Amino acid sequence: MIKLIALDADDTLWHNEHMFLETRDRFRELLSEYHSDDWVDERLNSTELRNLKHFGYGIKSFVLSMIETAVELTEGRIRGNQVMEIVGFAKDMSNSPVRLLDHVEDTVRQLASRHQLVVITKGDLFDQESKLARSGLGDYFSGFEVVTEKNCATYESVVERTCGDPSTFLMIGNSIKSDVIPVVEMGGNAIHIPYHTMWEHETVSEDEANKYSFLTAASIAEVPTLVAELSLRN
Amino acid sequence: MIKLIALDADDTLWHNEHMFLETRDRFRELLSEYHSDDWVDERLNSTELRNLKHFGYGIKSFVLSMIETAVELTEGRIRGNQVMEIVGFAKDMSNSPVRLLDHVEDTVRQLASRHQLVVITKGDLFDQESKLARSGLGDYFSGFEVVTEKNCATYESVVERTCGDPSTFLMIGNSIKSDVIPVVEMGGNAIHIPYHTMWEHETVSEDEANKYSFLTAASIAEVPTLVAELSLRN
Repeated sequence: MIKLIALDADDTLWHNEHMFLETRDRFRELLSEYHSDDWVDERLNSTELRNLKHFGYGIKSFVLSMIETAVELTEGRIRGNQVMEIVGFAKDMSNSPVRLLDHVEDTVRQLASRHQLVVITKGDLFDQESKLARSGLGDYFSGFEVVTEKNCATYESVVERTCGDPSTFLMIGNSIKSDVIPVVEMGGNAIHIPYHTMWEHETVSEDEANKYSFLTAASIAEVPTLVAELSLRN
Repeated sequence: MIKLIALDADDTLWHNEHMFLETRDRFRELLSEYHSDDWVDERLNSTELRNLKHFGYGIKSFVLSMIETAVELTEGRIRGNQVMEIVGFAKDMSNSPVRLLDHVEDTVRQLASRHQLVVITKGDLFDQESKLARSGLGDYFSGFEVVTEKNCATYESVVERTCGDPSTFLMIGNSIKSDVIPVVEMGGNAIHIPYHTMWEHETVSEDEANKYSFLTAASIAEVPTLVAELSLRN
């Protein structure tokens, strides 16, 4: 029996990555007088990775990395109004409307009528709480956990405080690396719902993914049927 | 009986506000060629308040507000290397050593031997988890809750998930506004440990504070005795 269903949030419940991609476009445009798109992308990516240990994930750390990259790529010639424009990217992203993926509201309501639901999401606490509040989905969830990393220890701690037994725990999300592998390693169940874009640091190879046993759904609308099958199987 | 003791973190377990004050000094120094210290302070304060709704609390939002203020106060003439220096403030703050307040380690160990302890702190999830890890105190706490606001609803949710009854809950912290008033309003117990500096947006008037019944300690070392008294009284 599945006792606790946990859902990832970004690009599982609501669209998120598109906002980062659109902001990258604006950033390339801003620096187009100085450098090629590819070079701007490459440098921003490496700044982001380097800064993860200082700043973690989320909008604010992304924007601080953009500012740092802009100063470096212009050798300090970036103008004040351009820096302000990048700070403005952070506000635009924070205030961007929350758009649910197709079938999310109906499916979450249906799942909540039969199971205890929680959200487990990586990222910035402020960003994620704000998105949950604006999503209108808050009432369906008994818990909302924002974590800095999704590893075995994170999931074990959730299981310990809730359903008690990993085999009764189901995680649903769009990242094989974060939502599937550590859950399966712990002895839990996972459903992967691929999203059409993925931050490159979240991708894993097909060979790596094939080592783990999990279900895949084309859309969240398929989840209730898969949950019923899982419950019969266990 | 007190069943659950919750402690605030910044300026209750470890020194924190000094780091923001020192960074404010560096910011004033950076802009000293343009404006007086008082005017820089006033403008940074108002930018911070205005940006709370976009960015929340924490190092990254503080630094984004500094960058915005610097561009405004220099009418865009801020130079790239100066912007980079402000981004560097964020890294320096994130990597600053965690210095415990006097008597914290001994007292926390003593409290943990008789009570369940958790941390409830406002701020940025990444910053706070990083500080807890570096503090060496992690093993004494059964929970670590980083929240975006400390209001009655926040504390009620903690009590509901843990000790069940507000009268068995004790909160300890340096902010009357965040650690005392909402807890007392909920029917819980609170011990206030004043810290020598306080972010001005956290202060409350003496008249306001006098409306609430709570204990005060000069140092965390007094807490075990106060907890024993509270347990006898209830």
